[in-house]
Amino acid sequence: MNRRVVIIGGGAGGPSTAAEAGRRDPTLAITMIEQGEYVSYAACPMPYYIGDVIKDAKSLIARTPEKFREGGVDVRMGAQAERVDLSAKVVYLNDGGAVPFDVLVLATGTRPILPGIPGEDMEGVFVLKQLPDAVGIKKFLQEIKCRKAIIVGAGFIGMEMCEAFHDAGVNTTVVNRGRMPVPRWDPELGQLIVESLKDHNIELLADTSIQAIEKGETCNLRLVTSQGNMEADLILLAIGVRPSVGLAGDMGLVLGRTGAVSVDLSQRTSNPAVYAVGDCCEAYHRVSRKWTHIPLGDIANKQGRIAGRNIAGIPSIFPGIVGAQAFKLFDLEIAATGLDERESAEAGYHPVSTLIWGDAVPIAAPGATRLGLKLIADKATGLLLGAQAVGPQGAVSRINTLSAALWSGMTVEEVAFLDLAYSPTFSRAWDMIHIAAQDLAKQMLGKP
Amino acid sequence: MNRRVVIIGGGAGGPSTAAEAGRRDPTLAITMIEQGEYVSYAACPMPYYIGDVIKDAKSLIARTPEKFREGGVDVRMGAQAERVDLSAKVVYLNDGGAVPFDVLVLATGTRPILPGIPGEDMEGVFVLKQLPDAVGIKKFLQEIKCRKAIIVGAGFIGMEMCEAFHDAGVNTTVVNRGRMPVPRWDPELGQLIVESLKDHNIELLADTSIQAIEKGETCNLRLVTSQGNMEADLILLAIGVRPSVGLAGDMGLVLGRTGAVSVDLSQRTSNPAVYAVGDCCEAYHRVSRKWTHIPLGDIANKQGRIAGRNIAGIPSIFPGIVGAQAFKLFDLEIAATGLDERESAEAGYHPVSTLIWGDAVPIAAPGATRLGLKLIADKATGLLLGAQAVGPQGAVSRINTLSAALWSGMTVEEVAFLDLAYSPTFSRAWDMIHIAAQDLAKQMLGKP
Repeated sequence: MNRRVVIIGGGAGGPSTAAEAGRRDPTLAITMIEQGEYVSYAACPMPYYIGDVIKDAKSLIARTPEKFREGGVDVRMGAQAERVDLSAKVVYLNDGGAVPFDVLVLATGTRPILPGIPGEDMEGVFVLKQLPDAVGIKKFLQEIKCRKAIIVGAGFIGMEMCEAFHDAGVNTTVVNRGRMPVPRWDPELGQLIVESLKDHNIELLADTSIQAIEKGETCNLRLVTSQGNMEADLILLAIGVRPSVGLAGDMGLVLGRTGAVSVDLSQRTSNPAVYAVGDCCEAYHRVSRKWTHIPLGDIANKQGRIAGRNIAGIPSIFPGIVGAQAFKLFDLEIAATGLDERESAEAGYHPVSTLIWGDAVPIAAPGATRLGLKLIADKATGLLLGAQAVGPQGAVSRINTLSAALWSGMTVEEVAFLDLAYSPTFSRAWDMIHIAAQDLAKQMLGKP
Repeated sequence: MNRRVVIIGGGAGGPSTAAEAGRRDPTLAITMIEQGEYVSYAACPMPYYIGDVIKDAKSLIARTPEKFREGGVDVRMGAQAERVDLSAKVVYLNDGGAVPFDVLVLATGTRPILPGIPGEDMEGVFVLKQLPDAVGIKKFLQEIKCRKAIIVGAGFIGMEMCEAFHDAGVNTTVVNRGRMPVPRWDPELGQLIVESLKDHNIELLADTSIQAIEKGETCNLRLVTSQGNMEADLILLAIGVRPSVGLAGDMGLVLGRTGAVSVDLSQRTSNPAVYAVGDCCEAYHRVSRKWTHIPLGDIANKQGRIAGRNIAGIPSIFPGIVGAQAFKLFDLEIAATGLDERESAEAGYHPVSTLIWGDAVPIAAPGATRLGLKLIADKATGLLLGAQAVGPQGAVSRINTLSAALWSGMTVEEVAFLDLAYSPTFSRAWDMIHIAAQDLAKQMLGKP
């Protein structure tokens, strides 16, 4: 009998596992269980679908259920895995079905954190996690009259949704519990973000906690906050996500310090018959040497491919992450990689940092467009630990170059002399990467 | 008595050496000898000065002679070093002066290769090497009547000058000895360049050799070629450069296989009292493990800094290059790094390659703007060896990331899972880097 692989979750990591396992071992009998109405879609572009840069939700779908079925994968849509019997090796579904497996893959993703305030379940209150959320928001936007939206949370989904609502012609207010949006970025860099929001008429309320959602007067809803009340037709709750580990917990699988499913570098959980991939599990961070939970689509895709290979009998290792991430806010690229100072200290390093400013467009607009770059390094070893960049151009480029440097464990002395493609239209002869790294090298004990 | 450092050449490497040596050891008595009328200028942006993107030649100058003098450097402008007596340690100048030294630095740069055809010294025939060349071309452009220019050579200076002449409103023809412009790039990528020239009404004559320059009829000059005659007021000879090694040769210094001055990783020549930096000397290539001659401003700056430190008594190593380079042609970014197939084979590798196409702007313009990426790797070891990219966006970014990967000697298996900042506006979840690397990994023996 063919080995039976059952995958729970059809977002990104699950389909990636299914595709790779099936490709590598066509004899596998693969079943993919998805509780929603879509599989294999790109969640990250959803704000651009809502902002109507992407017209059709279908274009977010990488592979339809039909396509998977053609490839021999048994896709069960609208089916929820309620319980797993690990000794009998059976998944029990909410529709009464029972699916036996030899290998189980958890790809259960995350669920949005809800603030737990009165009224958070009212009509017009949304989260953005699944494709149906995006479809619902886009449809709702076309119907609302007062053209006002409130985003609760200033993380990077909150920021991307500012642009989406702005593009959709909706007046937007962001309510942030902390002082600065996306606090992973240094406040000096964050100031560019604050200015960009202001330039696009988006109100940012800092240091504001939310207390309740009520029926509004001029708009449908009223948000009660520590800074007073405001009204809107749509409230988006974007205060973060948690790994969906209900099933994993019930099965007695080991969870990591982060609360996500603990896996090894092969994506195996504490039970040798069970793999986990994507946002529900941890990933090894090459710089901190700790297991972390950074739920991002590209990581899920990679983990799925590694799990798929291992399931197909090809021993494969997921070499981990360095924490590279980026988003766009209007004309700004906002990117970071590696560790920030707090994470560096927690990992046992002695962080020192530098933050420099340069021209994003050296020749065409000298002085007009600023790019900010922050580097963090370990004072003891000189190792590069992290980087952050914000600017109208060149931020993602530099962060990706520095991600490759972090991947290999380069010191700032090495980064200071890295050979990069120099052309006056793209950088100066000494790139900002070199200048920042040299600046840091000076802070190292015993370095010239 | 203070140690006397004499630097011959004031372009990029010389001033960089002077600045770093003086900063690290203020007791040094530094003299810099420059035969021209400018020191410490950025040569690479000269095409943008000619195209009037940069209005003022002064803005190309990083540091004036006065500024150097304030810093204690004795700058001798318009003075040519004619002879060096290595045993007496004296540089003899063309004005009869004699400058004694303890340490000598050669920063003599390159000189343009001339085709050696009749008429190449006529008025209106230019090379672009020094700042006075650029000033001369820009002035001449304002005076010529028939608004036609011919560029001989389709290397990257030739290509940049196409844009400069186009920006200056001059009708331009490129005469190329080979079939494709910038043959370092794969012909499939080069086709984008050919199309871009065509879109900007620049005529490209391939497989054409030049025979003579004569007085013209409708324009000032006539170029006689294997494909017939053409007329223009300005002819730019851009067929390459050679290291200026006359002095070094006279001094009996060892020259490398490339014809440039041989140095060690400290920038010392075969004579322990003599350093060489910049375009006149070789640089160690970390991928081929050979000494190469790649005359680029950023390398000169780095070598100068290393030489300056060593002269100041701080032992320092120039860690070499990976061959990263880039230029812009109208809307295209054109970038490459590492080795091409021929260089790979010469270095003892067994090159395999892949060339893929993707969206340069994934969300905003899917399918509309193509980015081409070629990767080259060693079949035996899986090591990444080189990369080439051409597209309206994202080419330089990817080449710089891959330069960092080459720097550390990554395999394509590693590159295939590299953690890069993913956001749908900048890339897909699997970046083109990953896809190309995975494609190559499949070509490796014994890899999954």
